[in-house]
Amino acid sequence: MCILLAYNIVSVFYAVKAMSTQSNDSVRPIRWQDTELLLLDQRYLPQRQEWLRLSTAPAVAQAIKDLVIRGAPAIGITAAWGLVLSLMQHRNVVEAEQRSRIAEDIKVLAAARPTAVNLVWALERVSRSLQAGRDIDAVIKEAVLISERIQLDDVAANYRMGELGAEFIKPGSVVLTHCNAGSLATGGYGTALGVIRKAWSDGLIDKVYACETRPWLQGTRLTAWELQQDGIPVTLITDSAAAWLMTQKQVDWVITGADRVASNGDVANKIGTRNLAGLCQLHTTQMMVVAPLSTIDPHTSSGAEIEIEQRQGEELTKIGDWDINAGHMHVWNPVFDLTPADWVDVLVTEKGALTAPGSSSIVRLFEA
Amino acid sequence: MCILLAYNIVSVFYAVKAMSTQSNDSVRPIRWQDTELLLLDQRYLPQRQEWLRLSTAPAVAQAIKDLVIRGAPAIGITAAWGLVLSLMQHRNVVEAEQRSRIAEDIKVLAAARPTAVNLVWALERVSRSLQAGRDIDAVIKEAVLISERIQLDDVAANYRMGELGAEFIKPGSVVLTHCNAGSLATGGYGTALGVIRKAWSDGLIDKVYACETRPWLQGTRLTAWELQQDGIPVTLITDSAAAWLMTQKQVDWVITGADRVASNGDVANKIGTRNLAGLCQLHTTQMMVVAPLSTIDPHTSSGAEIEIEQRQGEELTKIGDWDINAGHMHVWNPVFDLTPADWVDVLVTEKGALTAPGSSSIVRLFEA
Repeated sequence: MCILLAYNIVSVFYAVKAMSTQSNDSVRPIRWQDTELLLLDQRYLPQRQEWLRLSTAPAVAQAIKDLVIRGAPAIGITAAWGLVLSLMQHRNVVEAEQRSRIAEDIKVLAAARPTAVNLVWALERVSRSLQAGRDIDAVIKEAVLISERIQLDDVAANYRMGELGAEFIKPGSVVLTHCNAGSLATGGYGTALGVIRKAWSDGLIDKVYACETRPWLQGTRLTAWELQQDGIPVTLITDSAAAWLMTQKQVDWVITGADRVASNGDVANKIGTRNLAGLCQLHTTQMMVVAPLSTIDPHTSSGAEIEIEQRQGEELTKIGDWDINAGHMHVWNPVFDLTPADWVDVLVTEKGALTAPGSSSIVRLFEA
Repeated sequence: MCILLAYNIVSVFYAVKAMSTQSNDSVRPIRWQDTELLLLDQRYLPQRQEWLRLSTAPAVAQAIKDLVIRGAPAIGITAAWGLVLSLMQHRNVVEAEQRSRIAEDIKVLAAARPTAVNLVWALERVSRSLQAGRDIDAVIKEAVLISERIQLDDVAANYRMGELGAEFIKPGSVVLTHCNAGSLATGGYGTALGVIRKAWSDGLIDKVYACETRPWLQGTRLTAWELQQDGIPVTLITDSAAAWLMTQKQVDWVITGADRVASNGDVANKIGTRNLAGLCQLHTTQMMVVAPLSTIDPHTSSGAEIEIEQRQGEELTKIGDWDINAGHMHVWNPVFDLTPADWVDVLVTEKGALTAPGSSSIVRLFEA
């Protein structure tokens, strides 16, 4: 009880800090309300701000699959709450049946998206509450606390990464970001957008550009919306304008998040990240990847081991209600790509920022 | 009369050749019918095949501006016919007035798009018919012949470039193209797609990929449609998947057209070309640019002198009927970019293919 109380006080402290001490920071995409999970439905942004209410684990898995919520850290947090919902739903079932139903839910949640490692990481953390013979109510209570903790720790990690990353940004900088690695992709504040929020608040950034990020247009729909909510002006470009932008607007930094980082520093992130990191090699632009430790997979020795999700071709041939399929069109639609560690100038984590990240410096992060 | 007849025989020869001797080649976007210009309206492809009928020069200029037709060679041919329409429209006006109206039409046509050099080149060629004191009917007749010749020569140049470019393609090759440098962008057959058509017909190509090419989606709407018309299978990717495609599918060649080539070999082409050419530098992919001499501007010493057209931001924030503008969104929307000559492995023209193109080899082309 005493431990639970201490946990709650810590949570409240973090929550208050999360709401008040950071400027340019108002968006939160995940809300837990007693027995329900509320997700800001990112399929409808920026036109409608609609919250989806979920009360079962399969519904949560489906929401992750359908991109109601996306972004590695946000997927992790959501999956944690999904497991809490599973425990609550199967609370009154006999123990043997309960175990198998919960195990089935964990399987469904873990399979929702294959690339982000945070998902499995979060499920493993919450699963620690599931000790044989324990009272289900105690298990649920602990699972709720762990999930809350995952969510609040994520925001705290983002604040820390924001500070560490902003130290690399010189006054008057021009930055370009890809996809949405912001509040909407995390518990709040964001990874890449956390660094941009902090550097903007500190008056270091002259101009923020965002790639529209086909096919799902996270840049246009999410990043632009989110930064506007927080009073940070942003200019959109097509993904293919990046090289020309680098020369014409003297971009100092490309700043992205990551869906998974291998232990050698290879980065799996939104398709197009490899394009940008490669183009940094050919221009005077540097590449910064911002990702919490939970996104780094010490069990993956290099990017070659990371499964890259492929999604349906319709994401390219149907935009909104506009069907532009010329007939029997083939589409190759990988959602992520791999950027070699060599092309990353700085990897920012909550435990420190690594210049020229590699296996040995990443191992030291985990030991710190 | 004899000369006119000879011209006509040549035209008929080329026209017959254009219709019959090449396989995988059925699409023609520009048709002249006595007193009207018909353009296959590319705004509605691939859903509807609609022909726009035009009978005045300002209407032709507007059609070029509105992207009814696009692609440097096609714009040149269209502008030539636009000037013919001007001559016909002002046929019965008194001479002084006639001159000023035609001059005004030439100005309007020349200003329709700023980047493609073919437009001005074609207008200059047709303008040669405008000699002071000549009978207007003779002028019109000659202007028609010159315009026909420009159109047929363009197709013939494309056939020649197809042959020259295909010589670089090894059997089993994987190629990636950007935007639409095909029949729809030319008199027919295409520049980049001409090389692909020829190499495909010769059984040299294993797989054709096309970038969707935001914001106007020429890849999805035009290139995919056009290649399907001619039985060449094509697989679409997002523009930002290029680097990942290069590694995963071992792309041998990126093949694009050009909107203008400076005399040092710098290439202005559809936004994203610089991205692709840069990424070729970092992968085992080579860069081929296919452009007729009319696209090379001997008066432009380097890419720095080329005006790059900017278009309205709505092209990014509104897709079909879907308005995804999050509010007061800034957009940077250049339509073209510059690729340095250094990044071009082969420049194919109808007068020869240059490996490592530069000022001296380009000058020699014009002298040949």
